[in-house]
Amino acid sequence: MIIQFKTSAPQPLIQAFCDRQTAAEKVVYQVKHHVAVIGAKAVTLTDDEQANVDSISNDDPSAVLSSRLFQPEDTIIKLPHTEIGGRTFTMMAGPCSVESADHIMAMAKVAKAGGATLLRGGAYKPRTSPYSFQGMGEEGLIALRKAADANQMDVITEVMDETHVDLIAKYTDVFQIGARNMQNFSLLKAVGKTNVPVALKRGLAATVDDLLNAAEYIAANGNQQIMLLERGIRTFDNKYTRNTFDLNAVPVLQKLTHFPVIVDPSHATGEWDLVTPMARAGVATGASGMMVEIHDDPEHAFSDGPQALKPATYLKMCEQVQAIHTLMQEW
Amino acid sequence: MIIQFKTSAPQPLIQAFCDRQTAAEKVVYQVKHHVAVIGAKAVTLTDDEQANVDSISNDDPSAVLSSRLFQPEDTIIKLPHTEIGGRTFTMMAGPCSVESADHIMAMAKVAKAGGATLLRGGAYKPRTSPYSFQGMGEEGLIALRKAADANQMDVITEVMDETHVDLIAKYTDVFQIGARNMQNFSLLKAVGKTNVPVALKRGLAATVDDLLNAAEYIAANGNQQIMLLERGIRTFDNKYTRNTFDLNAVPVLQKLTHFPVIVDPSHATGEWDLVTPMARAGVATGASGMMVEIHDDPEHAFSDGPQALKPATYLKMCEQVQAIHTLMQEW
Amino acid sequence: MIIQFKTSAPQPLIQAFCDRQTAAEKVVYQVKHHVAVIGAKAVTLTDDEQANVDSISNDDPSAVLSSRLFQPEDTIIKLPHTEIGGRTFTMMAGPCSVESADHIMAMAKVAKAGGATLLRGGAYKPRTSPYSFQGMGEEGLIALRKAADANQMDVITEVMDETHVDLIAKYTDVFQIGARNMQNFSLLKAVGKTNVPVALKRGLAATVDDLLNAAEYIAANGNQQIMLLERGIRTFDNKYTRNTFDLNAVPVLQKLTHFPVIVDPSHATGEWDLVTPMARAGVATGASGMMVEIHDDPEHAFSDGPQALKPATYLKMCEQVQAIHTLMQEW
Amino acid sequence: MIIQFKTSAPQPLIQAFCDRQTAAEKVVYQVKHHVAVIGAKAVTLTDDEQANVDSISNDDPSAVLSSRLFQPEDTIIKLPHTEIGGRTFTMMAGPCSVESADHIMAMAKVAKAGGATLLRGGAYKPRTSPYSFQGMGEEGLIALRKAADANQMDVITEVMDETHVDLIAKYTDVFQIGARNMQNFSLLKAVGKTNVPVALKRGLAATVDDLLNAAEYIAANGNQQIMLLERGIRTFDNKYTRNTFDLNAVPVLQKLTHFPVIVDPSHATGEWDLVTPMARAGVATGASGMMVEIHDDPEHAFSDGPQALKPATYLKMCEQVQAIHTLMQEW
Repeated sequence: MIIQFKTSAPQPLIQAFCDRQTAAEKVVYQVKHHVAVIGAKAVTLTDDEQANVDSISNDDPSAVLSSRLFQPEDTIIKLPHTEIGGRTFTMMAGPCSVESADHIMAMAKVAKAGGATLLRGGAYKPRTSPYSFQGMGEEGLIALRKAADANQMDVITEVMDETHVDLIAKYTDVFQIGARNMQNFSLLKAVGKTNVPVALKRGLAATVDDLLNAAEYIAANGNQQIMLLERGIRTFDNKYTRNTFDLNAVPVLQKLTHFPVIVDPSHATGEWDLVTPMARAGVATGASGMMVEIHDDPEHAFSDGPQALKPATYLKMCEQVQAIHTLMQEW
Repeated sequence: MIIQFKTSAPQPLIQAFCDRQTAAEKVVYQVKHHVAVIGAKAVTLTDDEQANVDSISNDDPSAVLSSRLFQPEDTIIKLPHTEIGGRTFTMMAGPCSVESADHIMAMAKVAKAGGATLLRGGAYKPRTSPYSFQGMGEEGLIALRKAADANQMDVITEVMDETHVDLIAKYTDVFQIGARNMQNFSLLKAVGKTNVPVALKRGLAATVDDLLNAAEYIAANGNQQIMLLERGIRTFDNKYTRNTFDLNAVPVLQKLTHFPVIVDPSHATGEWDLVTPMARAGVATGASGMMVEIHDDPEHAFSDGPQALKPATYLKMCEQVQAIHTLMQEW
Repeated sequence: MIIQFKTSAPQPLIQAFCDRQTAAEKVVYQVKHHVAVIGAKAVTLTDDEQANVDSISNDDPSAVLSSRLFQPEDTIIKLPHTEIGGRTFTMMAGPCSVESADHIMAMAKVAKAGGATLLRGGAYKPRTSPYSFQGMGEEGLIALRKAADANQMDVITEVMDETHVDLIAKYTDVFQIGARNMQNFSLLKAVGKTNVPVALKRGLAATVDDLLNAAEYIAANGNQQIMLLERGIRTFDNKYTRNTFDLNAVPVLQKLTHFPVIVDPSHATGEWDLVTPMARAGVATGASGMMVEIHDDPEHAFSDGPQALKPATYLKMCEQVQAIHTLMQEW
Repeated sequence: MIIQFKTSAPQPLIQAFCDRQTAAEKVVYQVKHHVAVIGAKAVTLTDDEQANVDSISNDDPSAVLSSRLFQPEDTIIKLPHTEIGGRTFTMMAGPCSVESADHIMAMAKVAKAGGATLLRGGAYKPRTSPYSFQGMGEEGLIALRKAADANQMDVITEVMDETHVDLIAKYTDVFQIGARNMQNFSLLKAVGKTNVPVALKRGLAATVDDLLNAAEYIAANGNQQIMLLERGIRTFDNKYTRNTFDLNAVPVLQKLTHFPVIVDPSHATGEWDLVTPMARAGVATGASGMMVEIHDDPEHAFSDGPQALKPATYLKMCEQVQAIHTLMQEW
């Protein structure tokens, strides 16, 4: 059951209502004037409460906190150097892996030059094979933080493991949850208990509803700062591209959820020469941002070299993406 | 084996070479100065021929005539009111089915107002169920032709059946082959023997190579006027959209083939309110054109109402698509 | 609307009822005492008719004639040497292509030795590439018929094209419709107008409902002698097998339709050494029959060599399949 | 690089060779007389070692320890009441969730009556929605252990989280890793460091190679007691079944790996009335075992009721599966 109080409703009145539900052993969530009482079919309201209610709905989707029914307005995530959500367009760039302090510093400069305000780089890497490079660990986090600070950027990096949550929180502005961990529910609960924004990547075989339910694990644990990343799904067509970029999911998600939707043309194609056209397509859908991988020497990258853009290509791509975004602002 | 003669090579010299291969029971194809000798591993050239050869390659892809290795330059298809291919962007619009002479006339005006130069409309409809509307037949073709002529437009309409090829050729400028018939090899051969351009829709489970091999059936039968349509593939994700729009396929195909690549956001989404963002994405990939379905009363459309754009929405979509295309011309 | 007359109802009474509906411009189908009036929501019955009605249902599935709601009892297809349907298990075997009169004769002997009563072999081949072997045509049909007759077997062979229907009908006992033609509606209508049984192969991306609707095109044109073949679907997993064998579809189809369900482990795997275990799995699901490809020299087969069983392997496979079928008869 | 020592080679000799590689900073794995030196292209052998070597191969697959190239013979896992692997067939049964001490005790009796020697039941449940039943936790583990002990059975239960590994190890004989955690690499490493056998479920979009690489994470951390479960993959066909049962994967995996392959017809279909035919198909492929869900009151099950077999159906299914397995022993 979703109760929309009026925006003018006094917080103590909303709080008192929620406390009463909790006392009655209901599970209650409140974000601003939006309230959800999970599983409830009816509630008793005082006259005063009744007067402050805007609407009541019983048509709860499974992922209620993530839904536009619960929160019609866009979630906007604010970081020191970045704002994500709504009609803003945010560029996030960096190498797949942090490879050394010098390298990430050089890549941060490139990322920034293209307009990126978030620096990406993996210090803990989820690799298909146990014998592949597994990341620099905390040393990588330190280098990443330093490179971002030196360029007035924010940090986004992957957390693979609930035991690393506290450590990584010391260095990052945004937790990234990888596609393979999208339904690692223990990890989702753990980041849900922090106040660090989370970028949740869609799993290779995750439906739109699966993605929203995964976001719901984070939200239901108290963290409403969530963005969703479309990064390609797995289909029969995998000879010329690593994945199938499901751009339909951008407007579909924007209808269903208030969380920002970000696209990742690097993983979605897996081939650097497809990244620019698909980045243009991504911004044209109306996505709130983009994450891309860059490298100055892709052939010797520690991971995912084939999909990395060289600096010059990246800068040209950014120009085109920015120009399309500017054009779209008029509509 | 692919032999690229110099552009300056005399046609009689190329012709004589081809005739000699044919006489030796080889299968030979020639398009301008491009020659393919199927299955050959070596050829004997006269000194004169040798002097006129630019390059020889033994690395034939399966769909050789369709490949950029055979013909590096873009195929441009010229119709009375339209040019398709290269960096031109062509809009094709109309209702899913021709419903009546009046209705198609009204829809043609709308299509034209948005900038479309090709009018689409089905007179023979491939329907999943035998009990659904199967199309108006020849009466529909007559109405479609009339509506196009009255608006200085060209006609594109579906041929489902090799026995209809001659009949439909009397009324259309472009044959459309539907997704379900993409590997109806008898039909491909039949349209390959005409000189009417063909728009070949990608099948629901067709790989990029399957699509190119299907085009090859048309080309190998003598018809090089082919365009390829991406209209969505079938994946696990089918709750909120009818198909998954595989926009990655646009730049992939453009690398592999010289045939124009067209996108169809109507079938690729199946939902009218997703068509505009996905049309923007489609043009942003660099596709050579777009096909969309329009209807003034979608709820009473004879087929595919849910994905049809109403006139006002269509016109607004066209403006956005055109603006992005104009912007891209500079790059 | 489905009307089940009593089995004791006089045929003239049922006929009169149907004629009255047809006269009222309804589309009516009758198979024995089962009657469907397409799209009707109510019918008027005489007192005599009413007394002969067993049940009336308004819950028509889209593919009504194919459904168990219309015909609860299994369809049994009778050929000179074979019966297909119900709890009988029918083996169909032969080479992918008819390669010569001698070869098909030799292969027929092998097929028969394993217990097959239907001889398969393609004379018109649907090949992905136009440059691959396209079949021997009528000469192949003649050889196939001769080989079957010499071994007291029936013939099953593919028809790709409505213009070939009459020609092929002269030689075959069963039309095979290939996976790529499953939604070639013109072809479905054409074989639906004959009285030759049809084996309809499931398309690579066809849902169970798509398959039933394709069968419905045949049934609605008058031919109720249909069997359905599961031969693998296209999924992301295609490195070690050509397709994914969707054996779940066997019991699913058996719930929904009265038409016999046949499995094809050759195409479903694409690898000969997987055929025997998957053939055992196929019979264990309860399928009514099986089609397998055999060849005495797979490396030099004109088509699909990698999936062909050599004679000794085929005979051993048949023994195992037969033993499992015998065991299952007790349950 | 894989070195197969002779089975007669003295362990100290093998050990000395391995120690030398380790000292040279190579990553070395040894299982019995099988040795892998990761990434090595050449090794120096003493004369004595040379004399004890059977074969050396440089053609390492990515998941080397999991491969038949490394260990040609089947892995056999021994538990107090069960042996898993090779041509033995092992039944594992129980409810989806442990619901109460009494219920799991009753279900254990049923499972045992059908021939199961492993009792399954979830105490920690990975649920798509955070608002669904999440399991009884340790109390459930206690009840599960008690029910198994009372019936001379072994326990298999899911571990979702590396922080739970030690706790669950106190109660279980086999760790189950769920499909959604198949690439939770931290969890794989954690169970790899225990000596508790692991049942690794294939992810919804995991290729055969992905599954083997996931197993490799466990093996490379020291735990060679691994079995692999096929439980259905996600495809476009999801109306009548929850997943597509990829039975092809059974013989494919058996070619590639020495780890036992188990099938799960409950999750692979999601519908109880499809479980029996697909269980028959599963055993007929040659799988080493089966896991099924049972419940005495499926409509009120805490989770996955629609796919649970009632006791009588389960017992009949077990009889059929056992009869097919017995028949196959002769081949």
